[in-house]
Amino acid sequence: MILLRALLGEVLRERRQELGMTLREVSADARVSLGYISEIERGQKEASSECLGAISGAVDLPLSELMSRLSDAIAEEESQSTAEVESRAVVAELPRETRAAVVSDVAA
Amino acid sequence: MILLRALLGEVLRERRQELGMTLREVSADARVSLGYISEIERGQKEASSECLGAISGAVDLPLSELMSRLSDAIAEEESQSTAEVESRAVVAELPRETRAAVVSDVAA
Repeated sequence: MILLRALLGEVLRERRQELGMTLREVSADARVSLGYISEIERGQKEASSECLGAISGAVDLPLSELMSRLSDAIAEEESQSTAEVESRAVVAELPRETRAAVVSDVAA
Repeated sequence: MILLRALLGEVLRERRQELGMTLREVSADARVSLGYISEIERGQKEASSECLGAISGAVDLPLSELMSRLSDAIAEEESQSTAEVESRAVVAELPRETRAAVVSDVAA
């Protein structure tokens, strides 16, 4: 299952690094505690709407653009999950010996 | 300030109504309590990532598409806020008497 907060954290970290900002700087600009921002970036805490608004201001990215980047990041994960499910389905239809060979190849 | 949860609630409600589903049906499919879903739709509670994943499945909308719709809804609010700020700036530069007339016109 795709976890929104994990991908949101990645998008926020990427944006911060694009700007060359430190966590401490974002924390000061957004007036959000360093610990909280750090947990959000690591996908360990949900960000409240107020907090996300403040962070989006601090990293100079409109909320709409933040959500658009998040949507792209999720779409990428979704297509990977689909590819995994599809390749598992293909493998499942192979004759037993070939299947074993493919599975051991993939595992190698 | 644009509140993410308010717009998320609107997007979710629109999607549910597109499908002609009741809150009770979404609640049962998503295995999320009726009260919680109802509060999320009204923008009164933040939705956890797990909960959003479950709701997105129940209303048959990939998370990426949900975030994309949310991004569009926010962009619309952002352009309205910008227009408001700009028109306020224009009004502020008018001579005092014209300004008073415009403000009372807008308030009417």
